[in-house]
Amino acid sequence: MPKDLVSMKDIAKEETEAIIDTALSFKDVLRRDIKKVPALRGKTVVNLFFEPSTRTKTSFELAEKRLSTDVINFSVSSSSVVKGESLLDTVRTIEAYGIDYLVIRHASAGVPHFISRITKASVVNAGDGINEHPTQALLDAVTIKEKKGTIAGLEVAIVGDILHSRVARSNVYCLMKLGARVRLVGPPTLIPLNPPSGVKVFYNMDEGMRGADVVMMLRIQLERMGKSFFPSTKEFFKYWGLSAERLAMANKDALVMHPGPMNRGIEIASEVADCPQSVILEQVTNGIAVRMAVIYMLQG
Amino acid sequence: MPKDLVSMKDIAKEETEAIIDTALSFKDVLRRDIKKVPALRGKTVVNLFFEPSTRTKTSFELAEKRLSTDVINFSVSSSSVVKGESLLDTVRTIEAYGIDYLVIRHASAGVPHFISRITKASVVNAGDGINEHPTQALLDAVTIKEKKGTIAGLEVAIVGDILHSRVARSNVYCLMKLGARVRLVGPPTLIPLNPPSGVKVFYNMDEGMRGADVVMMLRIQLERMGKSFFPSTKEFFKYWGLSAERLAMANKDALVMHPGPMNRGIEIASEVADCPQSVILEQVTNGIAVRMAVIYMLQG
Amino acid sequence: MPKDLVSMKDIAKEETEAIIDTALSFKDVLRRDIKKVPALRGKTVVNLFFEPSTRTKTSFELAEKRLSTDVINFSVSSSSVVKGESLLDTVRTIEAYGIDYLVIRHASAGVPHFISRITKASVVNAGDGINEHPTQALLDAVTIKEKKGTIAGLEVAIVGDILHSRVARSNVYCLMKLGARVRLVGPPTLIPLNPPSGVKVFYNMDEGMRGADVVMMLRIQLERMGKSFFPSTKEFFKYWGLSAERLAMANKDALVMHPGPMNRGIEIASEVADCPQSVILEQVTNGIAVRMAVIYMLQG
Repeated sequence: MPKDLVSMKDIAKEETEAIIDTALSFKDVLRRDIKKVPALRGKTVVNLFFEPSTRTKTSFELAEKRLSTDVINFSVSSSSVVKGESLLDTVRTIEAYGIDYLVIRHASAGVPHFISRITKASVVNAGDGINEHPTQALLDAVTIKEKKGTIAGLEVAIVGDILHSRVARSNVYCLMKLGARVRLVGPPTLIPLNPPSGVKVFYNMDEGMRGADVVMMLRIQLERMGKSFFPSTKEFFKYWGLSAERLAMANKDALVMHPGPMNRGIEIASEVADCPQSVILEQVTNGIAVRMAVIYMLQG
Repeated sequence: MPKDLVSMKDIAKEETEAIIDTALSFKDVLRRDIKKVPALRGKTVVNLFFEPSTRTKTSFELAEKRLSTDVINFSVSSSSVVKGESLLDTVRTIEAYGIDYLVIRHASAGVPHFISRITKASVVNAGDGINEHPTQALLDAVTIKEKKGTIAGLEVAIVGDILHSRVARSNVYCLMKLGARVRLVGPPTLIPLNPPSGVKVFYNMDEGMRGADVVMMLRIQLERMGKSFFPSTKEFFKYWGLSAERLAMANKDALVMHPGPMNRGIEIASEVADCPQSVILEQVTNGIAVRMAVIYMLQG
Repeated sequence: MPKDLVSMKDIAKEETEAIIDTALSFKDVLRRDIKKVPALRGKTVVNLFFEPSTRTKTSFELAEKRLSTDVINFSVSSSSVVKGESLLDTVRTIEAYGIDYLVIRHASAGVPHFISRITKASVVNAGDGINEHPTQALLDAVTIKEKKGTIAGLEVAIVGDILHSRVARSNVYCLMKLGARVRLVGPPTLIPLNPPSGVKVFYNMDEGMRGADVVMMLRIQLERMGKSFFPSTKEFFKYWGLSAERLAMANKDALVMHPGPMNRGIEIASEVADCPQSVILEQVTNGIAVRMAVIYMLQG
């Protein structure tokens, strides 16, 4: 295994599969009465979140505690970063504390990559700008594998604002590596001009649904509403929302996924979010198992 | 034992007594050199505080750590709640993390009750609006029982702004269940029009003191000063403050209680807060023992 | 050992040496795979930071976790302090939680001393106004001893804004106790009028460098720039910055120290911060070992 998990591009197929299998076995631990393993006792993880986050940070923190690590949440707002210290000096200082893992979220693409090159600690990218969010892609893969038995050969539709989505980017790399067929579904303004080769693009949602085994909705950034991208949330739902009718166009038993938090009634109908095909809460549960697996495996 | 502790109304007399007895035995643990029991190792508690709180949150956090649980403080200000996610989705997400206990404080009455019905985790109400604060009532009961040997038959005067006090509400339910005789003492504008049957009301503090075995002062919300309720802090102390003279009107050895933080010189004279009859710091210590007992017993 | 570490003035030479030796042996623990000792399991530390801090707080928190204590970070901004409670009542309340150690940072000089007198818990001063920062002085002493073998007889130059520096004050007390010869180097406006006897004062940096075995730079508070103290950061570096040329005037192999976070190019040239004589990152590492030693030894 590599030292860091920064991009789904850097992780080989075999490594990706090993993380998924390890996550599935950690899931058994999470079903036990004592949801904890002593695997990483005496190791220290620093969660370094430059962007506010509750879901991802809580998920990492739970994963870390269940591996029995010591957890430090480095509060950036009140930190030396504010006092004008360079990122390089901040990271060197944290490394000098003698830590083992650094989980980083930052608004700028490339920061986890930069940090991984200047520290001996293992770096996990918890989301960098619009670049990548690899543990989200891995938890999505675990969820699909658990429900469908396999990922290779499945038709996966990723729907919404692909252009600004680090979740979409990491998923494209991860799913294609594992042999899925990936479709990007959304308005032309929100889909990259040069998608990776092999990816199909649909500018019409009904067409994008036909034959899909998995429908992966993205969270719409409400800040973009009313701007040039789309005029209103109502209009967005009409053209790009996952309604029950649209889901019915996909394959029977197609999975419904969403990274959360959901905007019910905007990108996804409330009844669809709660329907039997929805695995949205499974994704949350698998997030902890995947993060345990990633931290555990980078240890080596 | 029930799954949740949401209201003192829902807890039977026997259960209330069992919590008090368990708290008293946890108090022995807290006197040891190693103030910790492995009782709930591998269990996870999420502290979900929608209102700022330091005392109650710290008390719960210490209780949880002394039971050896893993503790997650869910920071609401930076959370998905702010991003417009519904409370229902937030709670479902937290539940999907695989947690065991949810300690909730919220500015709106009824939120812990609502949440307790949608989650399999045990919910502990850490204060909901002006509704209830059951662990405060239980720690008060532990303190009275420890000092007086029994609660049944005692005359307990609750003094101050009863109308807006969740502490008063929970205490009325708890104390009456345990056989105490409860008096509400305060200005007519700050006492509910229809107090529970059996409760005596005094609109004059001197009268309210006579024959009291316990004097339970409430914290006055300074925000209400200068409004229609009372013109000034000086005037408040004159009519409703616990001075040494007033305390002398109560029974000999009457206990002085206050949930904290105190406004010295406003609802309670400084010399009374520090007098030998004051058990205010004992209440703080018992708060941890009671919260350990509650979390431990809901486990079943 | 005394109950508290409030000032380097209060700690005898033998106690100071014992802390340094204990820190050096804890450093071995920090080099192990499992960087943790069960020494203080079941003990509770409250970190009570009234001033924002990330570095010092993180260093203490890591030290506490590696001693296996339970750690509570008492958030002052949302606490009862804000609700108008007196510092005395806040501390009594925290003490009633049954805690063992209280680590305090406060903007006002003397607060840790005041608190140490009203609580049975051991108090560690983590910085009080412009008064003292004893654990910083101790970690500096550990670093010098580790690198130079001894402290007695060394020439140590402390450079910069001595007047407003708690780091400088604690270092003067600590270094003189251990037999070093201390020089204060800086502009007349930023050096106390009556330095302790035995301390030499240099108003010219080149002269202050000659014969120095250790050059201890202080962080300049950028807030003071452009005020009466000095006109610009450029001018500050010209007169008081540690350039490679200036460092060459000191003794061969003179150590370069800085408490961090650094203002590169203002009080220290970037090339000097990263040169082989710089032990700035060692200081960070030793900070954890020293804080472990202090908390461990006050326990007795």
